[in-house]
Amino acid sequence: MAFSGVLAPVLTPFDAQLDPDLPRWLQLCRALLSEGCSGLAIFGTTSEANSLSFEERARMLEALVTDGVDARALMPGTGCCALPDTVQLTKIAVEAGCGGVLMLPPFYYKNPSEEGIYRNFANVIERVNDSRLRIYLYHIPQVSQVGFSLPLIERLRRAFPSMVVGIKDSSGDWNNTKAMLEACKGFEIFVGSEKFLLANLAGGGAGCITATANINAKAIARLFRERSQGLQDEVNTVRALLESRPLIAALKAVVAQRTGHPGWRRMRPPLVELSEREAQDLIARLA
Amino acid sequence: MAFSGVLAPVLTPFDAQLDPDLPRWLQLCRALLSEGCSGLAIFGTTSEANSLSFEERARMLEALVTDGVDARALMPGTGCCALPDTVQLTKIAVEAGCGGVLMLPPFYYKNPSEEGIYRNFANVIERVNDSRLRIYLYHIPQVSQVGFSLPLIERLRRAFPSMVVGIKDSSGDWNNTKAMLEACKGFEIFVGSEKFLLANLAGGGAGCITATANINAKAIARLFRERSQGLQDEVNTVRALLESRPLIAALKAVVAQRTGHPGWRRMRPPLVELSEREAQDLIARLA
Repeated sequence: MAFSGVLAPVLTPFDAQLDPDLPRWLQLCRALLSEGCSGLAIFGTTSEANSLSFEERARMLEALVTDGVDARALMPGTGCCALPDTVQLTKIAVEAGCGGVLMLPPFYYKNPSEEGIYRNFANVIERVNDSRLRIYLYHIPQVSQVGFSLPLIERLRRAFPSMVVGIKDSSGDWNNTKAMLEACKGFEIFVGSEKFLLANLAGGGAGCITATANINAKAIARLFRERSQGLQDEVNTVRALLESRPLIAALKAVVAQRTGHPGWRRMRPPLVELSEREAQDLIARLA
Repeated sequence: MAFSGVLAPVLTPFDAQLDPDLPRWLQLCRALLSEGCSGLAIFGTTSEANSLSFEERARMLEALVTDGVDARALMPGTGCCALPDTVQLTKIAVEAGCGGVLMLPPFYYKNPSEEGIYRNFANVIERVNDSRLRIYLYHIPQVSQVGFSLPLIERLRRAFPSMVVGIKDSSGDWNNTKAMLEACKGFEIFVGSEKFLLANLAGGGAGCITATANINAKAIARLFRERSQGLQDEVNTVRALLESRPLIAALKAVVAQRTGHPGWRRMRPPLVELSEREAQDLIARLA
């Protein structure tokens, strides 16, 4: 199963001890699928996944599959700084039947050579050693500081054509996505914001994996189906309201209000929640 | 025991499977102590520690203490992206009797607020909950991208005066170290390069924690004891030769040559070793 359409990098709720709140997380996962998301990119940047331990991610994935969600619709983030962590987490995802994994490059050491990033992925693929593996590269240079150039993408595709199958371009730079669409035929290209959804689809892209799907999935899924500029303008308006604030905190404030559970606003350090006033202001503007 | 003098962020050797080569690592740890290092800052940036899994770090620390090295001389790096990892690794270090820990801030999310970084450290301290804990802040903004401002340092010291006891300033910016020396009286300030050792000591600093101690410990320790400009100039010359190359790879090439074990050159992705020609050139120049 190849992915297409709208995927949500699902927010992670925390309880009063700052541990993942599994029941509320499962509830959001199910809601997003029922609202039209074609898949769940759990453990993304928006999920505060890099603030979760290896064991927490493993436990959450197991709970989600046990809960009955079709693993083929899951694209968990499995790229860690340390090769053994990436390998183990990816193995767990593949063995659980996940349709793919969204893989960050190792992001502690800056300005790594392309050879170094290539070796990381080659090592992961060799060690996972499972023909079911489908890797989506996670390009988010403004956060990870380490990204994927076109030559590196092409080198990885040539070496592992059945395994390196797509990319999420979260650079926010449409010219970068455009260059990928032109250079990487047959690659499943997702944009990291619904702002670029129509343009991406027109260029042969696969869809979007977008933070705001956590609160606006229905409208974005409808835009994917109907492909109208009017719908594009509508989702852009909602996106702009959220993007002008700390995005993850803003999304959590909206989910807290909708579910009536203020605890949804909690974040793990180093991220912090919106103040009460900021949250009220955002909710008033969205309404 | 407070730290002072020259600490080495010990290199991590890897075997042919890219697993940590424990016997060779223990050998280097013992050699560095016998050459005059007052402590070992294992699991630093130079140690490729962020390319090691949690379990690997825990196992290595246990092996080192079991091998008979005085844990009070150890300042392991324990700062991870995820709060539970930092807490657990720090607990392991404190329970092993380590004299301190060198703690990175969470480094995935960029431009975190000072409140967010503060909360991270407050949470770690509360959860480790052990009066023996001694934290040295690890300031290396050019790599971690997340650093410590003077107001944040002062806030942490005021809140946790017996636990937040020092800092390693690896910014490479002497003006930053100077400002810390002036503002943070009683704080144990280490520079991240022996280039600034004399200046740091003159300003009341505690010493240096420096990558090049892996291959030049005797001379740097002598500089610490004798404090002469002539010795400073000598260590600077060696440093300059190494710094003009990828530093960790260069250090490993030198250790490989000295120990006669070419495997010492191996690095985990995303880092790559020097080419044979680069290694030979470096070794010729050092001789």
